[in-house]
Amino acid sequence: MRKLSLSLVLVFTVLFSATGFAAEPVKTLPGDITLAQAQTILAAALKKAEEIKIPMNIAIVDAGGNLKAFYRQEDAFIGSIDISIKKAVTARYFNMPTRALAAASQVGQPLYGIEVSNDGLIIFAGGVPLVDKNNVIIGAIGVSGGSIDEDESVAMAGAAVIK
Amino acid sequence: MRKLSLSLVLVFTVLFSATGFAAEPVKTLPGDITLAQAQTILAAALKKAEEIKIPMNIAIVDAGGNLKAFYRQEDAFIGSIDISIKKAVTARYFNMPTRALAAASQVGQPLYGIEVSNDGLIIFAGGVPLVDKNNVIIGAIGVSGGSIDEDESVAMAGAAVIK
Amino acid sequence: MRKLSLSLVLVFTVLFSATGFAAEPVKTLPGDITLAQAQTILAAALKKAEEIKIPMNIAIVDAGGNLKAFYRQEDAFIGSIDISIKKAVTARYFNMPTRALAAASQVGQPLYGIEVSNDGLIIFAGGVPLVDKNNVIIGAIGVSGGSIDEDESVAMAGAAVIK
Amino acid sequence: MRKLSLSLVLVFTVLFSATGFAAEPVKTLPGDITLAQAQTILAAALKKAEEIKIPMNIAIVDAGGNLKAFYRQEDAFIGSIDISIKKAVTARYFNMPTRALAAASQVGQPLYGIEVSNDGLIIFAGGVPLVDKNNVIIGAIGVSGGSIDEDESVAMAGAAVIK
Repeated sequence: MRKLSLSLVLVFTVLFSATGFAAEPVKTLPGDITLAQAQTILAAALKKAEEIKIPMNIAIVDAGGNLKAFYRQEDAFIGSIDISIKKAVTARYFNMPTRALAAASQVGQPLYGIEVSNDGLIIFAGGVPLVDKNNVIIGAIGVSGGSIDEDESVAMAGAAVIK
Repeated sequence: MRKLSLSLVLVFTVLFSATGFAAEPVKTLPGDITLAQAQTILAAALKKAEEIKIPMNIAIVDAGGNLKAFYRQEDAFIGSIDISIKKAVTARYFNMPTRALAAASQVGQPLYGIEVSNDGLIIFAGGVPLVDKNNVIIGAIGVSGGSIDEDESVAMAGAAVIK
Repeated sequence: MRKLSLSLVLVFTVLFSATGFAAEPVKTLPGDITLAQAQTILAAALKKAEEIKIPMNIAIVDAGGNLKAFYRQEDAFIGSIDISIKKAVTARYFNMPTRALAAASQVGQPLYGIEVSNDGLIIFAGGVPLVDKNNVIIGAIGVSGGSIDEDESVAMAGAAVIK
Repeated sequence: MRKLSLSLVLVFTVLFSATGFAAEPVKTLPGDITLAQAQTILAAALKKAEEIKIPMNIAIVDAGGNLKAFYRQEDAFIGSIDISIKKAVTARYFNMPTRALAAASQVGQPLYGIEVSNDGLIIFAGGVPLVDKNNVIIGAIGVSGGSIDEDESVAMAGAAVIK
């Protein structure tokens, strides 16, 4: 078998050395959500989902709106994988709960049609920003699997643990 | 002409042998829809379509939401190829007839805008889950070509034969 | 705030009752990967990633190729979110490690160009099928963040725990 | 439940009446592949697949390059659903076996890169045009699941029955 040793990390280091960096730069904004935080949030959200007995998809994105962690419980809708991720993305892209977009996006309302932007936004409840103890938005959580009220209650249970 | 003899199946067998498997692993979860079942469902759906004299597109997906079989009758809308497949996918992704999504997705209703998720859902009637004799959802059927009531009647005629 | 009480789960139950089902059908094929299994696999993969000191994206899909769980470690490439998911999908779609596709997809080889199918396959190492104790493929794991050998070593560490 | 009686077929009829057509126009080009032909082709292809013991995805498109019929056998690669359809589309889009595109699409060759057009072409063997007794191309068949030679042999077995 061919020897495959090319490392993206190596390429990265070489390139930055070549451009004169003294040390490898910091890659992640200080304060962005950590995997440990995401796991704590997921655990709290799962606990709530189990209490209300609705199998859920739970997605967490970071401050850049990029996927950080995801869980799908047994029997949760396959179609809600994408919805939960889009709810989290939408909540971070606009720094508000997705419920807030619903009213403004109805027929005749100012943001009518916004859902087709960004490769598809979700404009109903279940996505909420993640705000840490320093009052900084460090990402968002999106939940899908039950009614929108159930989804949002699970998202809020997750978001609550890092405040 | 070049000799092209590399077989994916061969590669697969060799690799798994190399990693110590005694036998080739089972590739399909037991209980998933078979092609024979899909053909029986298609035949029943075609029979209904011929009875009501509406040319139809008929799509069947498996338990994972992946296409298993498809027929388009003469004169059936070309634009309904995609609709029939999306109806089947949608019905499996949410484990319910697509008709159930229609009411909840109207203007002002909780799931308004859901259709932009999952690269496009179909939120009107004509997709129904396929439930077998053991009461397990093994896939879904989606039909498009006539009115949504006609489409759904053909889908249900197909779904009925495996119960 | 509007009262949004319509539950998809409720709709589902009512519709199936109306169509004569005695009990709610089984929604997941027995034997498919569970969230508990996915969490165990993620933990083993994380452990390996920490040992080799490479921050990773780790994705797990079920038997149908649909996302089940995902973690991104601090400083792991954002661009590897999609790669790790596509590696897992590719490994399940072809029931083989993605490394096996690399050789066959090179210039002049039989499968040259295959990567443009399926909305983008990943045809280098780091995705491996998940085979359980019963020798059934229940999904796949995809890892991206380091060299392809590092990625694959993390994927294999994850896959090893359910054998 | 709301009465849903709007028929696309009705709309169609009304619109064409309004524009002065005496009778409903012929919707399908005379001579295009029929579902009966597609079923015959599928049966012949399945027979060959069973003989060589390779589970296959088999797709048939019509003269317009639009999906007409599709079968996936048990254990056939999920990733080959898309490949088989794209092989059929590619074979009809260029009126030649997909094998013919392979040589011309290699690095340094005239059509290098063509596979990214048309939302993804497949440029290796397994897709062949369907030519009827009148020497008219009425569609194409695409097969994926084994080596490219195996795939092509199944496609040719299917194509042979309508010549």
